[in-house]
Parts: sequence; structure tokens; C-alpha cells
Amino acid sequence: MVFKQDSLKLIDQRKLPSEVQYFQADDYREVKFAISDMVVRGAPAIGATAAYGVYLAALEYSTLEKEEFIQEVTRASEELKRARPTAVNLAWAIRKMNELIYQNREKAVKQIVRLLREGAEEIAKEDVKINKKMARHGNRLIPEEAGILTHCNTGALATVGYGTALGVIREAHRSGKDIQVYADETRPRLQGARLTAFELVEEEIPATLIVDSAAATLIRDGKIDLILVGADRVAANGDTANKIGTYNLSALADIHEVPFYVVAPTSTIDFEVENGDEIEIEERAEEEVKGIQEVQIAPEAVNVYNPAFDVSPAENISGIVTEKGIARPPLEESLQKLGGYSKI
Amino acid sequence: MVFKQDSLKLIDQRKLPSEVQYFQADDYREVKFAISDMVVRGAPAIGATAAYGVYLAALEYSTLEKEEFIQEVTRASEELKRARPTAVNLAWAIRKMNELIYQNREKAVKQIVRLLREGAEEIAKEDVKINKKMARHGNRLIPEEAGILTHCNTGALATVGYGTALGVIREAHRSGKDIQVYADETRPRLQGARLTAFELVEEEIPATLIVDSAAATLIRDGKIDLILVGADRVAANGDTANKIGTYNLSALADIHEVPFYVVAPTSTIDFEVENGDEIEIEERAEEEVKGIQEVQIAPEAVNVYNPAFDVSPAENISGIVTEKGIARPPLEESLQKLGGYSKI
Repeated sequence: MVFKQDSLKLIDQRKLPSEVQYFQADDYREVKFAISDMVVRGAPAIGATAAYGVYLAALEYSTLEKEEFIQEVTRASEELKRARPTAVNLAWAIRKMNELIYQNREKAVKQIVRLLREGAEEIAKEDVKINKKMARHGNRLIPEEAGILTHCNTGALATVGYGTALGVIREAHRSGKDIQVYADETRPRLQGARLTAFELVEEEIPATLIVDSAAATLIRDGKIDLILVGADRVAANGDTANKIGTYNLSALADIHEVPFYVVAPTSTIDFEVENGDEIEIEERAEEEVKGIQEVQIAPEAVNVYNPAFDVSPAENISGIVTEKGIARPPLEESLQKLGGYSKI
Repeated sequence: MVFKQDSLKLIDQRKLPSEVQYFQADDYREVKFAISDMVVRGAPAIGATAAYGVYLAALEYSTLEKEEFIQEVTRASEELKRARPTAVNLAWAIRKMNELIYQNREKAVKQIVRLLREGAEEIAKEDVKINKKMARHGNRLIPEEAGILTHCNTGALATVGYGTALGVIREAHRSGKDIQVYADETRPRLQGARLTAFELVEEEIPATLIVDSAAATLIRDGKIDLILVGADRVAANGDTANKIGTYNLSALADIHEVPFYVVAPTSTIDFEVENGDEIEIEERAEEEVKGIQEVQIAPEAVNVYNPAFDVSPAENISGIVTEKGIARPPLEESLQKLGGYSKI
């Protein structure tokens, strides 16, 4: 993610790993498209991207009178927020940006625009710092020798840099631990095969790719010492929404007594949501399941159910690694103690 | 599957549903290729196909002296048996055919060849009869209104006709029950998306396609009243090898107390194998996971683990539907009581 000359340059994750192409967003509408079409994905990356989107909207409306300016930026912010419903970092980043406007509404429009630019940059920079903190906390959980299962992509591509669950894996590898990573391919969008495998190969971290449904038998065979996943939203009680398939892994982990950890910044905790039942789960297009890139793999006439996320109940979760430390069960209490986001 | 003029015509299941092409096998080597490359798949279909393969080998060597003839056909049978290691119906059908040779070894080669042809036809015809019996037994398990989850393809394409688990579903639909079938797409070969969805749409049975990792959340949400799967090999104690991902479903079924049934002819029961640990699990090529048809979906450099099957433990299985009736727990006892294959 590079922001230069009022333009956001994103690696187009839809095209990886076969092509490394960049997507350029010059206004908030293009930012919104980048989020909804998954040019960019991963809760923290979406958050930072949306923050730049709010700034681009502010820039666009900066010639208006202040009242109108605020109205338009607020409207654009709402539009951006609707780009994807489950990842709370999106709403969180937009709220942060809107707070900046209201805190500075006495200032001149030009000044507010400048402050928004700094705010977006701050969110992006903070994300990398937060990831590195999580990586260090999380690395304490990794044995000297370990088989680690992960799902979806939680790496540098899903964040501004370094990664959440994959950040911990990176840190464990860098600290010299003998790890073997098993990456679920993560249908339908194949973030595991396309993105996680790509990042692991690039960094020469020993990795094995599997189809999602092979994870259960690996867990049962004792090849997995712990499971590390990211999160799109964590409810106040610790229930965690993450990429479809995560609940499945948490249930298998529970049966086979394999530690199951969520790695997520405190900005992913939504204290306004009591438990997982209240989290809106995004349903995506049938085409994601019926085809893979240009290849049709199912009859056109069949119905498809394509939820993008599922919810892992708190009781299946061994801990939530945040930048402020590791929340342990009972999660409701320990999340409360950690508290929400504050700059580090 | 059509056998005419000493040639086996198979629907090429690698190409479905985008193309309906036929694969013609004129000798046992082509039959072997059809099995190992999954032109034909599904334990019962593989069995019948291999039986024709033995006949084609016999035909090829029918000009030899009897001793040599028997030697060559036995060798070709061994080759056919190695085409895929997990499905026991393959070994079973070949053993049946070889028994025919030995029972008739006093007869003229020409006569033996004729008997082998009849033997193969018998195996194919019996398979359809057996499936229909299983379908009727299995239909007793289906409520008047039911959400049914199935994995891989166990339909007319996996058998000589009608199907095992999908045969039961077909029967339930024909008998007027209000069923909704959820079909796992079944990575890596996508038999659910390509074949099961294709058969369900053709027969206008209400069906919804999902990615494999979405099944867990459907089960948890109470949308699934029972799970029906096929089998590639059932051990004497009831442990069942089936397409990768089946163990996962059986574990989820156990957690959420959803009935989990295996539908398999008695020819799939291997009384020589005490339990699932003794079943050889085929590992297939990395390319199945790294790509989908012509599309590369993962970096070339990443390792892949690609087991074709896994084992569901007997304790997760609510019953095994065979042509002789339904074996209920304790499965070891009830399978013993049902006994092995005998013509119906």
C-alpha cells in the first residue's frame, strides 16, 4: 500500500500470484470498489485503505463551504463503510477519520483536509507497529519446533505490513524456530493458495499447501501443534468472525485439544456487539463458488450459498493475541481488561 | 458405462460439466489409465470398469496357450489393481474375475474368455440392483422434510447407475419427500461441483452448492438434518475411508448430534482390514491442488500434501446402509452379521 501524490497504489490481490499488478485509486469511489471487489482484503488493510478513502473524499469536496464539505465527506464515509459489512476495522477506521473532522470542525476546510491526510497516514503507520507488537506477543506461544495450521491470508497483504497470524509465523521463523506451516487454500477466493503460499515461499518459510477439507485429518494425525488465524470482528464475549472455514477449524481444534489462537489488533474488537450472533455475515456472489477465475466448475443452474465468514465461539478459542497482550479465557473478562484501541 | 463390441465407453468425468465427452477404452491398459486418471471414479464404478478391464486383457491374450493366458491375465489384473489403492471395490471386482478363471481353468481359453465377459456384465448389472436396494433401505432414514448434506459424488456417475448416497437422495426425492440437498464442492477434484451438482440439476432435485469449509457452519446453524456419504473402503470395525473431507464432516456431525450415514454396498466392506489405520490412503499429484484445470492458483514452489481420502472412525457413524440392510452401532457386530457380498 503506497499513498503518494493523492493516489493510493494497491497490489491487486485478485491477480496474485500469477500476475503482480497494481491498482490505482484516485478517488473514494475507486477506493470503495477496491474494497468491495477485494482488490485489497484483510481486515487491517481494509481499515487503512478506507481511511485514505475518507481523505480522498475530503480532498474532492475541499472547495465546498464547510457545512456542505462535512455533509459530503460524511456521506462518502457511509458509502465506504458499506463496501463490506463484516470486517469491523473498516467501520473503525472510518469512525476515527470522522472523529477527526468533528474534533476540528472549527478549523478551516483546508486544514481539516490536511489533518485527515495525516490521520490516514497515522492509521497505516500504526498498523505496522501494532502487527510487530502482536508478532512478538504471539511468538511466545510457538514451541521451538511446531506444525502450525493457518487459514486464509493474514500476512503483509492483509495488513499494511507484516501481518497478524502470519506476522506471528514470520516472527517465529525469524527467531530461528523450526516451524512447518500448513496453509489452507481457503476456497472460494483461494487466499491461502494465492497469497499465503506466495508470502511463505517468498520468505522461505517451510510451508505445505492443503485443500481446506484436509486440515481435519492433519489435526487428527497429530501434525498440528497449534492453529493461528486472523479475525474480521471479535465480539465482546470473544466470539470471533473470520473467513469461512474458521469455525470448522476451531471445532476440530477443540475435539483434538490443539490450541487455537486468534491474532487480531484491538481495533478488531467490537465491544458494541455482545456475541457472535449479532455479527452480520456477508454473503458474496454465487460466481465465486461456481467458477475459479475464468474456469466454470459447476452447472450454471445450481443454487449457491456463499457466506464469506463464520463465527468461532469463544469456548473454542485458546487465546486472542492483540498488540496489548494475549487475552486468555474467560475471554469476556480479559478482553474487557485489555480495553479497546489506543495508540501505542 | 456402455460395453459394446469389446470396447468400454465411459463418460469422461474429468471434463464434466463443461463438456460431455466419451472416453473409449479398447484394452486393459486404457482401462487402467481411465481409473488412475479419474476418467471414471467412484468405488462401485471403478469396480465394474476394472472387471471389463480383466475381460479385455483375457480377450487380448486369448490366442495364447492356457497356462500363458492365465499368467498374462493375472499379471494384467495385478496392474489394474494398482491403478488406485484405496477403493476396495477395485480389488474386489478383480478378485471376482480371477476366481472365475480359476473355477473354470479346466475349460477352453475361448470359453473362459466368454465367461469373463459374462462375469463383468454381471458385476455391472448387479451394481444397479444393489444401488436400488440401498436406496430403498436408506430412504427409511430420511424425514418427510430434510436438509441433507453430501460430499463428493456418489451418484450415477460414481456407480454403474443410480448411485449410493446420491441413490438414497434420488429415492427420497422420487418418493415425494421435501428435501434440500447441500453439496460440498469437494476440492481438489471438485466432484461435488462438477458431478453431484450436475446430477441434481438434471433431476431437478433442490440443491445448493457450497465450498467444503462452509459445511461446518451450516451444520451448526441447524440446516442439516442428516449427512449421507459413500465409501471407498469400510474396515471390519466400521471405520470408513472416503473422499478427503469426510472425516471432517463426521466429526462435526458428532459435535452437533446430526446423524451421519455411510451408504455402501457390502462389496466395499473389507473384513481383512481390522480398522481404519490399516487402510492405505492414496496421495495424488500436487497439481490437483496447485491448479484447477488450466488455471494455476498457487506458486509453483510451494509444497503440497494431497491425500485423496481420510478415515471416519466408526464411533462417528450412525449407520452403514448396504443392500442387505442398515448396519447400526456397534458396527463391528452388525457388519459381521450382515456378512460380505453375495448376489441378490
